[in-house]
Amino acid sequence: MAQNMTLLWGSGSPPCWRVMIVLEEKNLQGYNQKLLSFEKQEHKSQEVMAMNPRGQLPAFKVGNYTLNESYGACLYLEDQFKCQGTKLIPDCPGEKAKMFQRMFEGFTLADRMANVIYYDYKVPEAERHDSAVKRNREMLSAELKLWEGYLTKGCESSKDCCYLAGKDFSLADAVVFPSIAYVFRFGLCGLKYPKLAAYYECLKERPSIKKTWPPTWKETPGQDLLKTV
Amino acid sequence: MAQNMTLLWGSGSPPCWRVMIVLEEKNLQGYNQKLLSFEKQEHKSQEVMAMNPRGQLPAFKVGNYTLNESYGACLYLEDQFKCQGTKLIPDCPGEKAKMFQRMFEGFTLADRMANVIYYDYKVPEAERHDSAVKRNREMLSAELKLWEGYLTKGCESSKDCCYLAGKDFSLADAVVFPSIAYVFRFGLCGLKYPKLAAYYECLKERPSIKKTWPPTWKETPGQDLLKTV
Repeated sequence: MAQNMTLLWGSGSPPCWRVMIVLEEKNLQGYNQKLLSFEKQEHKSQEVMAMNPRGQLPAFKVGNYTLNESYGACLYLEDQFKCQGTKLIPDCPGEKAKMFQRMFEGFTLADRMANVIYYDYKVPEAERHDSAVKRNREMLSAELKLWEGYLTKGCESSKDCCYLAGKDFSLADAVVFPSIAYVFRFGLCGLKYPKLAAYYECLKERPSIKKTWPPTWKETPGQDLLKTV
Repeated sequence: MAQNMTLLWGSGSPPCWRVMIVLEEKNLQGYNQKLLSFEKQEHKSQEVMAMNPRGQLPAFKVGNYTLNESYGACLYLEDQFKCQGTKLIPDCPGEKAKMFQRMFEGFTLADRMANVIYYDYKVPEAERHDSAVKRNREMLSAELKLWEGYLTKGCESSKDCCYLAGKDFSLADAVVFPSIAYVFRFGLCGLKYPKLAAYYECLKERPSIKKTWPPTWKETPGQDLLKTV
């Protein structure tokens, strides 16, 4: 069904995962795909650079069209396959506004998270400061508290999930969930963020998410970097 | 025509400017608005915090709906006023894909720019490093070269502009132009980036952009921070 699409991806990468969730939700299985390793620097390989000169994953094509930017890819797929699979943009203007608002707040969440988890990767050793690490952790904590507040009611059961914008799963969930999964993978304490934890537990049972669960996460234990955030 | 909308904004802020350009393009004049001063910390005032708990501008409402995220606001306005004013999302799938791709690459451009221009504002004095300043400038330069390459043909005249995605002005231009204007405001050399310079010169004559030109830019000279980038 999606033989004209090609996805180069890395395990656990929220931008890659977003696109994969949307492909599942839109019943776009059967696309060409290749799992690459960030550790082996395969995202800087010639194969990736030819599709994405930024040397980032995902590298994604629909026919001849380049859609490497994960948010752009998700919006494009929903637009082109409106009536196929899950409807990911609500009709109701209020829900739609909330969906766009939460979707783009997700950028800040992903950024705050990366500043903590990838600090050593992003900042050369001679430029690292404990004060920056502390500030980054505080900013992530403040950000997570905002999201905890957005989930006004907790998910009751895996059959009665709460979502980020309205009563149904939407693009906001597709793009933000990978970041939420990431913080729990890195040890976030569910007792401190009970609504986020319930949201996470609920959505991880969703078929599109189960099917695209990062393969490396199944084989290795998580970390506890965020235990005290 | 847009009396149910309220915008709190700051002069020169690309996120604010994006929303204002789209409001003009969609013929949504007459909204309630208030210009606030970043210097006076008015973006942290109670008035802003009540609309945008992140203490950022824009703070934007359509009726009771909150759309503080500028990308979200632009997409929402285009969606709700599809047939009014300029059509900002092309129909042709190829142009649409390119529009989404460029639109979200614009996030990286804005980020690279802010890392250079706001370095001293963002990084406490004790954590500043010349090596980081140098790296940030190199990253901005590499980013600008990508965009220079995207503009395969230069704008010929103000009546024959080139755009970022296809033959017409689109959401990609509305969200990215403020960053391009910003780098020239901060002294980017047009001789080094001739296509970006032509794009800038061309689009600044566009009515929606002229009308929303940052008022503080009219009164004060630019800076030369980016002269050698």
